Amino acid sequence: MPRVAVDVLLKREILDPQGRAVERALPGLGYDGVSEVRVGKHLELEVDAEGDELADRVRRMCADFLTNPVIESYTWRVIGDDERADA
Amino acid sequence: MPRVAVDVLLKREILDPQGRAVERALPGLGYDGVSEVRVGKHLELEVDAEGDELADRVRRMCADFLTNPVIESYTWRVIGDDERADA
Repeated sequence: MPRVAVDVLLKREILDPQGRAVERALPGLGYDGVSEVRVGKHLELEVDAEGDELADRVRRMCADFLTNPVIESYTWRVIGDDERADA
Repeated sequence: MPRVAVDVLLKREILDPQGRAVERALPGLGYDGVSEVRVGKHLELEVDAEGDELADRVRRMCADFLTNPVIESYTWRVIGDDERADA
């Protein structure tokens, strides 16, 4: 079964307080030269479908349930086992 | 400046209540055939470095501040402008 990764962020025009907080804290921890920090959700899920049907189901799940299309945007991709964030 | 995406999940052996809740809700919304749902953090940030120095800074930031290495694991990658989750 394909494993899908979905990355969700607030839309660019919307203030991201979490991202702003991280961005402001990093220099104090010795990390300069870091900017444009955005913080959002990362989901991984296995979906029992392939090709266009997989794409259609992922897009519908994202639009209906996994994201708030009014304030969030997302990208998704099929990932290999070695790309799992909990590998 | 390179834009980096960091995906953080709870380690596989740790219960993921959010992922479990999403997994249980999906069939009720008409989405069957979805399993192994994991929910975590997605960060995007621009880092003023290249090559090995970029890799070293990202790894240190993740270990020191962006993740909790005791319970979380992560992956990171450089992304193009078209791969931004808030594109």
